[in-house]
Amino acid sequence: MIIVMNKTATEEQIELVVSRIKDKGLEASISKGTEKTVIGAVGDERLLDPKLLDNLPGVEQAMHIVKPYKIVAREWHPKDTVLDIKGHLIGGKHIQIVSGPCSVETPEQMKKSAKAVKAAGVKLMRGGAFKPRTSPYTFQGVGFDGLEMFRKAADNEGLPIVTELLDVRHLDKFLEHKVDVIQIGTRSMQNFELLREVGTLKIPVILKRGMSATISEWLMAAEYIASGGNHNIIFCERGIRTFETYYRNVLDVTAIPVLKKETHLPVIIDPSHAGGKAWMVAALSRAGIAAGADGLLVEMHPNPCEAWCDADQAITPTELKDLMKDLTAIAKILGRNISN
Amino acid sequence: MIIVMNKTATEEQIELVVSRIKDKGLEASISKGTEKTVIGAVGDERLLDPKLLDNLPGVEQAMHIVKPYKIVAREWHPKDTVLDIKGHLIGGKHIQIVSGPCSVETPEQMKKSAKAVKAAGVKLMRGGAFKPRTSPYTFQGVGFDGLEMFRKAADNEGLPIVTELLDVRHLDKFLEHKVDVIQIGTRSMQNFELLREVGTLKIPVILKRGMSATISEWLMAAEYIASGGNHNIIFCERGIRTFETYYRNVLDVTAIPVLKKETHLPVIIDPSHAGGKAWMVAALSRAGIAAGADGLLVEMHPNPCEAWCDADQAITPTELKDLMKDLTAIAKILGRNISN
Amino acid sequence: MIIVMNKTATEEQIELVVSRIKDKGLEASISKGTEKTVIGAVGDERLLDPKLLDNLPGVEQAMHIVKPYKIVAREWHPKDTVLDIKGHLIGGKHIQIVSGPCSVETPEQMKKSAKAVKAAGVKLMRGGAFKPRTSPYTFQGVGFDGLEMFRKAADNEGLPIVTELLDVRHLDKFLEHKVDVIQIGTRSMQNFELLREVGTLKIPVILKRGMSATISEWLMAAEYIASGGNHNIIFCERGIRTFETYYRNVLDVTAIPVLKKETHLPVIIDPSHAGGKAWMVAALSRAGIAAGADGLLVEMHPNPCEAWCDADQAITPTELKDLMKDLTAIAKILGRNISN
Amino acid sequence: MIIVMNKTATEEQIELVVSRIKDKGLEASISKGTEKTVIGAVGDERLLDPKLLDNLPGVEQAMHIVKPYKIVAREWHPKDTVLDIKGHLIGGKHIQIVSGPCSVETPEQMKKSAKAVKAAGVKLMRGGAFKPRTSPYTFQGVGFDGLEMFRKAADNEGLPIVTELLDVRHLDKFLEHKVDVIQIGTRSMQNFELLREVGTLKIPVILKRGMSATISEWLMAAEYIASGGNHNIIFCERGIRTFETYYRNVLDVTAIPVLKKETHLPVIIDPSHAGGKAWMVAALSRAGIAAGADGLLVEMHPNPCEAWCDADQAITPTELKDLMKDLTAIAKILGRNISN
Repeated sequence: MIIVMNKTATEEQIELVVSRIKDKGLEASISKGTEKTVIGAVGDERLLDPKLLDNLPGVEQAMHIVKPYKIVAREWHPKDTVLDIKGHLIGGKHIQIVSGPCSVETPEQMKKSAKAVKAAGVKLMRGGAFKPRTSPYTFQGVGFDGLEMFRKAADNEGLPIVTELLDVRHLDKFLEHKVDVIQIGTRSMQNFELLREVGTLKIPVILKRGMSATISEWLMAAEYIASGGNHNIIFCERGIRTFETYYRNVLDVTAIPVLKKETHLPVIIDPSHAGGKAWMVAALSRAGIAAGADGLLVEMHPNPCEAWCDADQAITPTELKDLMKDLTAIAKILGRNISN
Repeated sequence: MIIVMNKTATEEQIELVVSRIKDKGLEASISKGTEKTVIGAVGDERLLDPKLLDNLPGVEQAMHIVKPYKIVAREWHPKDTVLDIKGHLIGGKHIQIVSGPCSVETPEQMKKSAKAVKAAGVKLMRGGAFKPRTSPYTFQGVGFDGLEMFRKAADNEGLPIVTELLDVRHLDKFLEHKVDVIQIGTRSMQNFELLREVGTLKIPVILKRGMSATISEWLMAAEYIASGGNHNIIFCERGIRTFETYYRNVLDVTAIPVLKKETHLPVIIDPSHAGGKAWMVAALSRAGIAAGADGLLVEMHPNPCEAWCDADQAITPTELKDLMKDLTAIAKILGRNISN
Repeated sequence: MIIVMNKTATEEQIELVVSRIKDKGLEASISKGTEKTVIGAVGDERLLDPKLLDNLPGVEQAMHIVKPYKIVAREWHPKDTVLDIKGHLIGGKHIQIVSGPCSVETPEQMKKSAKAVKAAGVKLMRGGAFKPRTSPYTFQGVGFDGLEMFRKAADNEGLPIVTELLDVRHLDKFLEHKVDVIQIGTRSMQNFELLREVGTLKIPVILKRGMSATISEWLMAAEYIASGGNHNIIFCERGIRTFETYYRNVLDVTAIPVLKKETHLPVIIDPSHAGGKAWMVAALSRAGIAAGADGLLVEMHPNPCEAWCDADQAITPTELKDLMKDLTAIAKILGRNISN
Repeated sequence: MIIVMNKTATEEQIELVVSRIKDKGLEASISKGTEKTVIGAVGDERLLDPKLLDNLPGVEQAMHIVKPYKIVAREWHPKDTVLDIKGHLIGGKHIQIVSGPCSVETPEQMKKSAKAVKAAGVKLMRGGAFKPRTSPYTFQGVGFDGLEMFRKAADNEGLPIVTELLDVRHLDKFLEHKVDVIQIGTRSMQNFELLREVGTLKIPVILKRGMSATISEWLMAAEYIASGGNHNIIFCERGIRTFETYYRNVLDVTAIPVLKKETHLPVIIDPSHAGGKAWMVAALSRAGIAAGADGLLVEMHPNPCEAWCDADQAITPTELKDLMKDLTAIAKILGRNISN
């Protein structure tokens, strides 16, 4: 850690900072510049909280120089992690698409959806039984019955299932229905109690980025899961909140190369929630894969106009098929394979 | 609801929209303009989700014209709601300050804090037993023992207590310790399961604004609590996330007059988390009260340099006393009273 | 335009709105809903400013339903516009890459740069003679001598030149040096005097998006140029400002399909200023083309480590060549050609 | 400057950084930590651009530790600067209100406005002859005739005038009409050519913050003016752009204590453009003064419903009078005087 003292800092003030550093078992090295004194804290700086030094008299700024995340950091694990989801690989050279409806509605809808997912060559299926909705007066998901319908429809097509967990009290039922991948939604990215619970499992977790979470906070949220022992984490960029109102969120495509640099874990994008409109999905999906993403979480509905939820962002089975063709071609340019 | 059709919309497309409106039991009125056709849906438009119309062919945009919130809306309840927290009123002419340390540390620290709160003329005390922290490697709060320490120290000075609930599973213990006001933190504003649970109680709830929640989403989050039967809600603006990096968050002072217009419920601000630095607290507190806030949630520590958490943002007991003097004078200008 | 009256609006208040609409020569149609009255203004609504109605008593909200831009809007000009820059086409099926150094430094550097641009198969060259810099104490560009050096180096390789105009007083010199494409920088997007001046020319203009400009403001800025008679406009997305601090800006890749829907004019991206780091450029460039952009404005320097300005974001001649290969392959998947 | 090397940096890479530092005439000091090596550059670090080091091999991050602004910095000029505008002081203990209409319309309107400004006890008058408007199809200001009308109306009441300059070519006319304070608008904050021109004058300049400018960029923009010799600068916070759509901008009240800490120059706020609605103006004005602002720039119109521009944000003469009463009382609490 680097502590910059202000121009008028006294010797006593410098001494106090040094003693605080030593209290935590680190060494201090002092450099007197022409304008300011800089103190370096040498040792395991994760033990030092910059805020505990920031308010000491004479301190201008205290900054970490070591990244606060460790298990998820590529710095400590240079090779790409490849996860295996029931035989389907993701990470490294392997790209996976996850598709299906926003929410589980009926057995019939799920049956059609599963068939369409399979027909498009997609290997993993998504669907929500519990929906976090802005208004208490709109459809909130069909609940546990939905898990049942989803499991059955997916099993018929041999598809592993991905579904969102939003309440720690639902976990037992999720395990009972053998959910293959647990999704942590954007509103739960910093629900630390939930992160700790999924951290105790071995099931892969898709961790969506919070609506306005920084990359660093996102990596730290993953570190909560990883520090519990579950290293099977997939990051999912789903658009961030900005001043623009034309579309719901801005897909942060820059986050893809950045995460690939900072972490060894797979990174996917959700083009459906990012833009919020079906007509944007193909363009955003191509952009994500071209930028190096390891996959997509993309909403498809057998009949979007009749969807009970987010009807405006689901693509049709035919659109999914066409999209897969383009994505396969782009993956090839990058020396990667898709949906193996 | 207003549905704007695009320039090239056909009669069939207009008919489809009309039939969807009628399916939900509303009436449709069609206005043909020089450039575009506009369809009005007349009736209880809360039953119509704009997204379900947005993706119909020929539709350019579907917009609500009635506010999506109802119980919390001033439109339906013009008079200010005044809440009574163990005899201390908030709302209408009554301003209340809530103060205390960021986190509960030791019985001694809580004893000193409670005395300082009381000495400053503040009537309500805050303190966190469970702390949501960005990193899993930093101090996470002392847990239930903290509730015990807090309750005891506050009781000695006759102060009602305000503390954060971040896990539904903690609720029983909170009730056991007779927590007087439950705080829902910024990361939990859209933890809808948690909101539903506190919605079943009668205990007042301070609902902090999400880091990047819009005013409308915030009002809808309150509506989750209110629709469960608990109308004892206090909104707390705590700074929003922007591009500025000099300080942690931007205190959205404009949200105060806006909320006073949109809702009849009390609105307070948290100047400590907004700015993130103790030296900003007095200025932000004065601004909040001058803008019409019904109170403050302000961090004070008997010895800020030794605080275990957010040490850089707590003010001292003396600073709290001085601040109370200024705030009392500003309240008087606005015809209001403070800490009665 | 739609004017929503509030629940308690009186007949007189409705009448006043109606009379204001009629004053501007439009017709008013009144719909009384169960909760609110809605007034529609029928006619050329560009003549009505919503702000002039918003503050009338009883008005809750006044909203445009017709887009405020016209010449640049696809709504009025459905076919893609293809621009011809000295024989190189951009728009429709044609993609063009513009490359070169951030700033003109020396004749030698420009000569090497032009050769590298040509060698990579790129047809248009960029370079800045005047640099808008945050600090008055850093390098501000070499000025008019730079235009001279640039013109000469580019002419030797037969490359049209693209350079930024930031002061109306420089325009004569730009014309004298026969600048082929004028770039309006992000800080000048709403320098309306500058826009009006380039609006009187026939030279193609690259209009960069303001750092935090909405899509609508950007289209309106283009409308300033277009309404002066110059319809040769290319939009350039160069990253927007958000809360994220890991990189300089967030490349708004969603803006590409949105602009392609809203305007018939070409849309390119600047992957160099968006990310701010050379190692992100390839990923962002591929994402942009895959999302449907009509081109790139990408910084390349014969020796990035020695660049006088933005040294951290320029790619090398070799990297440019490799990038062109990938982009050509992606363009082909989309049925487009590059650098013809 | 501090340069942090990455974990795997080699001796050669460290040497290259050191040699670059020495090339600029600074000294280098090397500290080897347990995980990373940190290099300090000692000397006048304004000569070093972090971007020139960031891209050297092995460098993780290069950071300034000295503020990039100097003339405007309180660090180098600890005492408050008090400006004298035709006998009216601003800064230190002195608060000044600037009021008047958004735009100059007619001699009659300006006469009424000037009388209302005077009657409210306000000492400085504002009014715009040239208006930067988002759309080319809306009212753009009355132009130079407006300056004439403004000068005359203000002279009759003995009020110095404040008006916006948005084109360098208008400067002569501004001097001819003896404009007392030049306002640089939010869209021009980084119009560096304009800043340089007003930097050569002695006339006080109100520098509005860019719509999404950081505090640091804003201080640097002022440094452009100051480095030309004009130190008569007043900062004006006018709301920043965020994700919130209920109001136009978020008044960044936190910027007030921050600027008072970072600069010795006066800081005012514009509550009219911040909120964008007349009914918010009083609350925001009180908040600004309570937070320590040195003044306001507030729009008042003799008949807001008839205003030609921004009609929804102007307050009435009566509202201005009432506001002055509250502000005077708040100023007194802070030991300051208003409109002397």
